[in-house]
Amino acid sequence: MNQLEERILASGKVLPGNILKVDTFLNHLVDTELLEWCGEEFYRRFKDEKITKVLTVEASGIIPAYTAAKCFGVPLLFAKKAKSMNIGDDLYTSTVKSYTYEKEYVITISKDFLNADDCVLIIDDFLARGQASLGLLDICNQAKAKVVGLGFCVEKSFQEGAKAFREKGYHVESLAKIKSLEDGKIELV
Amino acid sequence: MNQLEERILASGKVLPGNILKVDTFLNHLVDTELLEWCGEEFYRRFKDEKITKVLTVEASGIIPAYTAAKCFGVPLLFAKKAKSMNIGDDLYTSTVKSYTYEKEYVITISKDFLNADDCVLIIDDFLARGQASLGLLDICNQAKAKVVGLGFCVEKSFQEGAKAFREKGYHVESLAKIKSLEDGKIELV
Repeated sequence: MNQLEERILASGKVLPGNILKVDTFLNHLVDTELLEWCGEEFYRRFKDEKITKVLTVEASGIIPAYTAAKCFGVPLLFAKKAKSMNIGDDLYTSTVKSYTYEKEYVITISKDFLNADDCVLIIDDFLARGQASLGLLDICNQAKAKVVGLGFCVEKSFQEGAKAFREKGYHVESLAKIKSLEDGKIELV
Repeated sequence: MNQLEERILASGKVLPGNILKVDTFLNHLVDTELLEWCGEEFYRRFKDEKITKVLTVEASGIIPAYTAAKCFGVPLLFAKKAKSMNIGDDLYTSTVKSYTYEKEYVITISKDFLNADDCVLIIDDFLARGQASLGLLDICNQAKAKVVGLGFCVEKSFQEGAKAFREKGYHVESLAKIKSLEDGKIELV
């Protein structure tokens, strides 16, 4: 068992609706040592790939994507969920359905920052149904960028996202895999 | 001149409305080496303060707040801009007016993570009118947490936020101070 799995078992909480709450260390209050380790571990698992950018979507994916990007020595690029005054008009966009927030939102990336020369590692904190990653894959496809892999801190293996990405042939690495959250109990794969 | 100021002069762009665009290295595409330096520099400037948590608001404040928190060896806490299904109901909230996004939004922090024992360093990427920081100060006040200082990567010194916080007696440190963006030219303090 690695340190993220240990921490999930020790401090994670299960809420109704198969929600795993990890806000004491991952996505509200953040344990910096653990997130440094996540970046190093993503590096260890993808270090044989040629990577030019690490890509995520704001907000809770930003830190593990950042610590991974630092290990690879490449820039982090994060998709925005809202259109600001200063992002410009030359944008890739994709629509993402969020179950956690119960709404759809549009993610955007400036066309200046992603192109056919890029080899992209997608990183996020959670993989459940895979909606956010589908949006990022869609944008990489629009940019003709190559996706070399997808890395997640926590994978809910009992939901469809992980299976779907692996069946499509993507290199998927998840640092902690959750087999089940039934009866309020966290069971790892 | 420090490395952030050099980078702003070399790669920053001025848009109409006194907007400084730094999306090639700070808040869309992110230069990890530069952001590590920002964290170290915040540590150097606040290292004599007792700090128990670094506080920011999603999304573009997260990385400099993270790299600072890592240097201090304390957790990062980031306020959320949207209410998710799993944040719970026991929340501190404050309303923030955003000029960049032309709207008001509510920021939230779980009451579990901030209390009267906390000594908080607030970090954000930009200080302009200071609205986001006012929201974070409001939440610290609700939690009776002590605010030991505010740190910003970029301060627009010609707008009212910096002056107002310093006049109230806060220890404010900004890694790059912009004197003027008039006529499309970036002038440092």
